[in-house]
Parts: sequence; C-alpha cells; structure tokens
Amino acid sequence: MHTAEFVKPDGRKLTLYGLEPLEVTSGIPSPSPEAVDARPVMRWHPLRGEWVMYAAHRLGRTFLPPPEYNPLAPTSDPEHPTELPRGNYDIAVFDNRFPSLTLSAPEPDPGPALTRAGVGACEVVVFSQNAQGRLSDLTDDQMALLISVWADRTTRLARTGKIHSVLCFENRGVEVGVTLHHPHGQIYAYDHIPPVQAEMLRNAGRYAREEGRPWLADFVQAEREAGTQVIHDLGEALSVVPPFARYTYETWVLPSRPVSLLSELTDSERLAFARVLKDTLLRLDALFSVRMPYLLTVHQAPLDGQHPEFPLHIEIYPYLRAPGRMKYLAGTEQGAGEFANDKFPELAARELRQVQV
Amino acid sequence: MHTAEFVKPDGRKLTLYGLEPLEVTSGIPSPSPEAVDARPVMRWHPLRGEWVMYAAHRLGRTFLPPPEYNPLAPTSDPEHPTELPRGNYDIAVFDNRFPSLTLSAPEPDPGPALTRAGVGACEVVVFSQNAQGRLSDLTDDQMALLISVWADRTTRLARTGKIHSVLCFENRGVEVGVTLHHPHGQIYAYDHIPPVQAEMLRNAGRYAREEGRPWLADFVQAEREAGTQVIHDLGEALSVVPPFARYTYETWVLPSRPVSLLSELTDSERLAFARVLKDTLLRLDALFSVRMPYLLTVHQAPLDGQHPEFPLHIEIYPYLRAPGRMKYLAGTEQGAGEFANDKFPELAARELRQVQV
Repeated sequence: MHTAEFVKPDGRKLTLYGLEPLEVTSGIPSPSPEAVDARPVMRWHPLRGEWVMYAAHRLGRTFLPPPEYNPLAPTSDPEHPTELPRGNYDIAVFDNRFPSLTLSAPEPDPGPALTRAGVGACEVVVFSQNAQGRLSDLTDDQMALLISVWADRTTRLARTGKIHSVLCFENRGVEVGVTLHHPHGQIYAYDHIPPVQAEMLRNAGRYAREEGRPWLADFVQAEREAGTQVIHDLGEALSVVPPFARYTYETWVLPSRPVSLLSELTDSERLAFARVLKDTLLRLDALFSVRMPYLLTVHQAPLDGQHPEFPLHIEIYPYLRAPGRMKYLAGTEQGAGEFANDKFPELAARELRQVQV
Repeated sequence: MHTAEFVKPDGRKLTLYGLEPLEVTSGIPSPSPEAVDARPVMRWHPLRGEWVMYAAHRLGRTFLPPPEYNPLAPTSDPEHPTELPRGNYDIAVFDNRFPSLTLSAPEPDPGPALTRAGVGACEVVVFSQNAQGRLSDLTDDQMALLISVWADRTTRLARTGKIHSVLCFENRGVEVGVTLHHPHGQIYAYDHIPPVQAEMLRNAGRYAREEGRPWLADFVQAEREAGTQVIHDLGEALSVVPPFARYTYETWVLPSRPVSLLSELTDSERLAFARVLKDTLLRLDALFSVRMPYLLTVHQAPLDGQHPEFPLHIEIYPYLRAPGRMKYLAGTEQGAGEFANDKFPELAARELRQVQV
C-alpha cells in the first residue's frame, strides 16, 4: 500500500492510497478556499441514553449536483475545483467538509440539555476514480486495498488519543438519500463507545466469559455445519445471511479466524475477506437485476483498550425486501427497537446462493 | 365512550368505538372468509440483544390497492367485502390480517438460532370513516376518543396476561412505505419489554431514585421555565421539541401531570392532550405546506407491574428535515445508534411556534 498525505487549501487533511507508487499531477484542491466553521455539539437524550449530534452548518451541504460538477472526481477545470487532485491513486480519504464531529470541536455554550463538544471525526472515503462505477467494480486487489484503508484510518484515528470507536460505512442508493453518486463511503469516529458497539461488546464479552470461546468462532462453525445460511465460503472468509437477520436479505461478511479489528487480518485473510465482500455486493445487485440500495457497516472493536472478544464483521442491509418493495423502519423498529422481517433468513440465503455472479 | 365487539367470519376480533350509541347496519365482513395461517416466530439477535420477528405470510399483504378497493372503508358492495361494516362508529380496531405476532402463536420447530413463538398481538386502528382525511381532521372529541381507544386497547391486551408492553403508533406517508392511505394506525403488543421501553424504564427509574421526583415533572417544569422548546401549552398538556431531538422537527406531546399510562388521564387531561396532539399535527402539515410524512409513537409504561416513574408521552418524528428533503437513517444512526441532526431543536421549535394553524 502506498500513501501520500496532504493538507487542502481550507486546512482539511487528504490522504491518497494506491496499489502503485503515487504520482499527483495537479495541485491539491478544495471546492472552496474557506474552512467550514464546524462547531458540532452533542446533547444527551435522557430517556434513550444516547448522544445526539448537532451540526447546524450541515443543512446547506451539497445536494444532487448537476452531472457536470462532481466534487469526488479529480479536478479537471481549476476554475471549478473538486475535492480531489489528478493522479494515479486508487482510493482517497479526506475530512468531511460538513462534519457532524471534529477533533477540534470547541466547548459549546451551555444548552437547554446536557451538552458537550462534538469531538470526533467525519471522513469521506472515495472508493475509485470511476464516477459511474460501483464498489463491486473494484478489482480484488483494489477491494483488499480498501480493507487496508479502512484499517489504516482506524489506526490513525485511534492514535489521536481522542477516538474510542470508528464506524466505516457505505450508504448506497438515491432511495436512501445518497446525494453523490460517485462510489464513496464515510467514516464516523466517536470519542465514546456508541450504543450499538457497546451492546455488541457486552454480548460478545458475556459469551466469551460463559463459553470460554469467542462468539465469532462458534458462530462460523455453527453456520458451516448447518450450511443453510452460508452464501459463499472461501475458507479464510465467508458470507452468511445470519439466522437472526433483521433485513430480508441482510448479509454478513466474516473472517474465519475471530479477530476484533481489520488491522489484524493477514494479507491472505484480507484478500479472502475482500473477495467475499465483492461477491456479496455482486449477488445483491443481481438478485432483482437492479442496483440494490443498501447500508454497509464495518463493525470493529472499541479502541479504548483491548477487546479481543469483539467480532470483526461487515453487516450489509439491503433495503429492498422484494422487487420494487423497500423496507421502511416504522413503529416497531423505531418505537420499540424490534424488527419485523417478512422472510425466513434461510430462504433468503438460498435465493442469494442461487444468484449467478 | 360506546363500544361493541364482534368476531369476523375468519375468526378475527373487531371492536367498534363511538361517541354516540352504536348502530351497525350491515353484516360483519372480512376481505376473505379464510383465516390467515399466522405462525409468527421470534429469533434472538445475539449481538444486538434483541428479538427479531418473522412472519413469513406477510410478504403477500395488501399493497397500494386501486382506489375502488379500500379495505379500511365500510363495505359498500357485499361482493367485495372490506374489513369494516356500515354503521355510525367513529373508530374501529381489528386484529391485523397479517400479524407479526399473535396471542395463539404455536411453538415453532427448533430453528438455526434461539427461536420461540411470536406471542403478542398486532391490531389495526382505523381513525375515521373518512378515507381522504387525516388524523388531524378529527374533532377534539374524536381525538380524545382515540386516546381513550388506545388506553382501552392497552388495558384489554394487558388483561390477557400475556402482554408486557404495548406500542400504539401511526406511520404516515407514501414516502415511508405506507400502503393504505385511509387514516389508520397500528398497535404492536409484546410478551416482553422491547429494548426502547426497557431503556426508557431504566433511565426514568434511575432519575426518580436519584432525584426523588419523576423525570417527566422536572422536564415539563424546565421546558416551561426555559420557554425555548415549547410549541403549545394548554396547561394540562403541552408540546415541545425536546432539546435532545433526534429528528429535525421531532415533537413530543406531554401531560403536565406525570403519569405512566394513557388510562390514568382524567377526562379534562385527555381532552387537553388530544387538543395539543391535533395542534401538533396541524403545525407539521402547515410547516412546509405539504402532508408531512411522520412516525407517531405512544410511549406507555410496561405492563408487567407498576412503573409509575415511566413518563407517558407521544413522540412524533417528521421525516422532512427541510422542504423536499427527507431524513434517512444511515451509517451513524443504524450502525452506531446515534443520530445526526442538522438543526438545533430550539430553532425548529421557533419555526413550529410561528406556523399559523
């Protein structure tokens, strides 16, 4: 992996990643020379017991720009700078211009609720220079590079000493509000352990204490023995529709060896993980012969210490539950925290196994 | 409140509610004489620590029927029976034909995860005979009747001895997947305490123990003193954009006197609560001069004992964060359990106060 770090004219950081030695053939641009005055704050929700992030500068953010302006493409016309320079990089990461959290968030004035600075980080990960491509159009090596990039961002964010949890994700599809079609993802880095990661840590920790084995090891073994949920198995990594799937075609990508962070994967494991991820995304697009809208989240252990019991894995939530039928989060999902699913996961798994990719 | 109970040809229960003595002028219909063979099951999500409901018969459920067939309208043509008879009722409640949970769910075969019967109940609440109306078109007395109906359903479900938590809700808007436009809501009744209610109970309980006062009493007093978040205050009930709102125009309807169940409201409190709820819904529709898509959830104490510290309230999540701009739950909301909000709640509250209704 080759990397090069830069600072944009407005002060934000940019890191380029490549499979080959990097050459940058233009200046480092920014859509505007002025820094966004981000003063994010968090407030405490006393009944749900979670922080809510407020970033009041975000409402004016870029929204479905005309095709001639794509802020994630390399800058071709210096009169209309984008976020990225010209060069031979494969993947680029930069600070979000409209962050919900920043490492330098100032102490806020006292608010009408328990309020504190929105300390954290929000990064944009551009998966490719191909504006029309999909994440699954990456080659196996590029996909493995992306895994390395996610691992590298996690390591770098942890090194600030301010970050306790990192969430890498891709949200895809106009159906779910994606404003830029160029293939990209985001990273949210928190100065605390958010509710979902805290719950996973609690449950995986309890399992490890009670059973004496990591949850992920037992889960992989059980799924391989049952066979009903497995979609694609490359030995060092596999994909399954978990038997407790919340979304109809929810698919998880798992390493066979239980680890807690992407950075622990060996080169060989990383390549297998990348191949299974690519296979999963291709199957989801092939399932109904449409670009499946989805949310992909990478679950890694909290960074506030060693949590070897936390199961590294990727969860993909496809939003279509049938051709043309979106899953919406309604009363029971949002009001009670429990999902209703129309199809048994083993049936969804069978359909995904039978898809030709 | 006048009530009349019936059994549909397919065995499901129907209860009619009216402000006046009830007269039914047709037979009790059902869209099909055959009972749906609902065998819902629940499976345990070991990492998120929550139940997931599977109701495999649901996928074929009614979807955007042509205007000539509205299953929630009174039956006009006996050749095409709907869910409801003709009569002078105001509100009707019946068992959902495609339930995610049923009181008689059979023990399932062992599954590929911790599995048990999907015991609970799913009901449909038809707010009005006016297929083109909105919930906010109800008169004050009809809205107060709806509050009584929600209270009555909760009491009746608790009386089965199988229900530990009841969630009444309305999900409105084609934008969020609503398949029937006739104004209606749903009720989910659980045989356990779902994660959201468990968390609220834990937090409100801790507050009451530590402060010696119910959370709701202190919250209402603080909001009245601050004044920045209050939208409409009728003394016995009020609406606020909570200072920790997760959705941009999230609005809560609260009683002034801290109670834990709708059934505890006095006649006078119920009418004030109904008026504030109607006022809230009218403001949300007036805000951008469109029918605001929203989720409305009624939060009541669990039914497995006495929980006077639980704060009865209604939460409304409007899905538009600006004209034409939907809020979607993406990476941080679904992957971490923390919301990003573009606007400070006190600014949203000011806008909602200034709306003419």
